[in-house]
Amino acid sequence: MTALSVAEARQILERTPATLRALLAGLSPPWLAANEGPDTWSPPEIVAHLADLEETDWVTRARIILEEGEGRPFPPIDRVAFRTKLAGKTLEQLLTVFTERRAGNLRALEAMKLDPADLLRTGTHATFGSVTLAQLVATWAVHDLTHLAQIVRVLAKRYDAAVGPWKEFLGVLKRG
Amino acid sequence: MTALSVAEARQILERTPATLRALLAGLSPPWLAANEGPDTWSPPEIVAHLADLEETDWVTRARIILEEGEGRPFPPIDRVAFRTKLAGKTLEQLLTVFTERRAGNLRALEAMKLDPADLLRTGTHATFGSVTLAQLVATWAVHDLTHLAQIVRVLAKRYDAAVGPWKEFLGVLKRG
Repeated sequence: MTALSVAEARQILERTPATLRALLAGLSPPWLAANEGPDTWSPPEIVAHLADLEETDWVTRARIILEEGEGRPFPPIDRVAFRTKLAGKTLEQLLTVFTERRAGNLRALEAMKLDPADLLRTGTHATFGSVTLAQLVATWAVHDLTHLAQIVRVLAKRYDAAVGPWKEFLGVLKRG
Repeated sequence: MTALSVAEARQILERTPATLRALLAGLSPPWLAANEGPDTWSPPEIVAHLADLEETDWVTRARIILEEGEGRPFPPIDRVAFRTKLAGKTLEQLLTVFTERRAGNLRALEAMKLDPADLLRTGTHATFGSVTLAQLVATWAVHDLTHLAQIVRVLAKRYDAAVGPWKEFLGVLKRG
């Protein structure tokens, strides 16, 4: 396995806010209200979750690894804290919050001047135990991609019936 | 089932070029060369496929439905025609071709001034038989979303190993 390139991971991280804006800004209410059923999220809820984790998760955990190592387990994540912390915000406002927090966190990541040895340093995850800073940075990027894929799937499923027999050829409609 | 709103489908169709540009433009070669293994596509190949179908598929089929109905089956699609027709083009060039063709096709769609009765008109698909114009328009939009999801998945899988134990929480890495 080759070492993680933080510069490469950054390329994903810095593109997500603009990608979400291009995909979602200005969509009409029926698109923005779409979800996958009870206890699933609409596109604005997913953006709110991403914005919230920028405040509580990634850089916080990176700092714990660098400053405290495995001695202090990561604080748990509240995946639905956005429901109260970002209640009442429009999609536009949520995109702006996410964009600003992400930019700030990428500046913080830059300021850490991580070298290959830093990336091998470890912290303690409540479920997984020892994890490396490299794994945390890679997960930050793939977490973006997971939720981008989720948004795309939520939008597509609105037309699950509308595509008729073509559904067979449309992979995005076959994934849970 | 409610009738398809062409205006709503357009909202997806008109966002895809800018979404792909925000996600992909400027990514380094390792990201752009990523694929899911033999006989799978990289992000630029997927953009080329989308650009090619703008030339050959959607509006062509809509016109066949409106002008000839079920009498003339749709011409078959060559899913890999882009390999020769768009050979040698950079990602930037492919994004530009796709953007321009999509804009032209949305103008063509607008000019058709489709009403609800038009959307119920039918054509003949070689595999499925009778399909409606509404199903074709919905499929055009979901085809975009399927390939956007594919690109996101291809990028994410580059970090399949790098995320370590977090893979369990990252749905995009679990999909084929």
